[in-house]
Amino acid sequence: MSRIIYFDDLTVGQRFVSEPEVVTEESIIRFARDADPQYFHIDPFTATESVFGGLIASGWQTAAATVRHLLERCGVIFAGGVVGVDATVSWKRPVRPGDRLHVEGEITSLRLSASRPERGFATFDSKTLDGAGRVVQTLQATMMINRDSSRRESPPAG
Amino acid sequence: MSRIIYFDDLTVGQRFVSEPEVVTEESIIRFARDADPQYFHIDPFTATESVFGGLIASGWQTAAATVRHLLERCGVIFAGGVVGVDATVSWKRPVRPGDRLHVEGEITSLRLSASRPERGFATFDSKTLDGAGRVVQTLQATMMINRDSSRRESPPAG
Repeated sequence: MSRIIYFDDLTVGQRFVSEPEVVTEESIIRFARDADPQYFHIDPFTATESVFGGLIASGWQTAAATVRHLLERCGVIFAGGVVGVDATVSWKRPVRPGDRLHVEGEITSLRLSASRPERGFATFDSKTLDGAGRVVQTLQATMMINRDSSRRESPPAG
Repeated sequence: MSRIIYFDDLTVGQRFVSEPEVVTEESIIRFARDADPQYFHIDPFTATESVFGGLIASGWQTAAATVRHLLERCGVIFAGGVVGVDATVSWKRPVRPGDRLHVEGEITSLRLSASRPERGFATFDSKTLDGAGRVVQTLQATMMINRDSSRRESPPAG
């Protein structure tokens, strides 16, 4: 069951673990055709000649999927959506068709917005793991999230 | 005219400036539908109710476009493609339909791979600017790039 999360509901140390999702060849090619059309992301045949020996997902696909996992596959809905402020991403292993990925993350910092009292900033540290438990990516992202107007007078949790 | 670039051709301080590209509503929605399906990236009507007052591009679209600009819109071809190792991105302003973006970047660091003598690591510091010259994103990425086998005995440029 999903529940709506406001900035006020977040606490430092709070963990999110997503349901796994299988990466398909079709989704790799569809993402990369426009966004990152290098041959080892879009052509399964010539990709065999690459350093990877086959098709791999664009790193940007795995990065974007991190926040999507948080939003869609952790049973939570963030009020007003999630707006990225900055991110640091490290790609550890190639992601291939058939890989079953999930995201494990934790809120590591919370602060109110000085200019926008209706929003706050949350920093989320995550690992994306494959079906064998190997880390394929680490990502730290700072995101802007709505506060609950009914609780705005009280200090935020965390 | 395009020219093939090997790791050996890169020098610290080398600059790349891309031809501008106009971001369309259609490209914003197409990218976000799968990769980052938040309402302010995929629905021009409900997006008017968001903090942005209208449709904006996913930050991951602008991030991915940085490397694509480098590869497709600077008149260079990187031998063997470009493989992302890590990246730090900061989103400064929303990107809206009709924005005309270009990328200005510089090689800030070069080092050989210890484990793969046929490749090297290049760090690329970039700004993405809109038609009014405002910075919409900064991105620093470290990428793995092929060396030229015929020059492998000599030290790399830079």
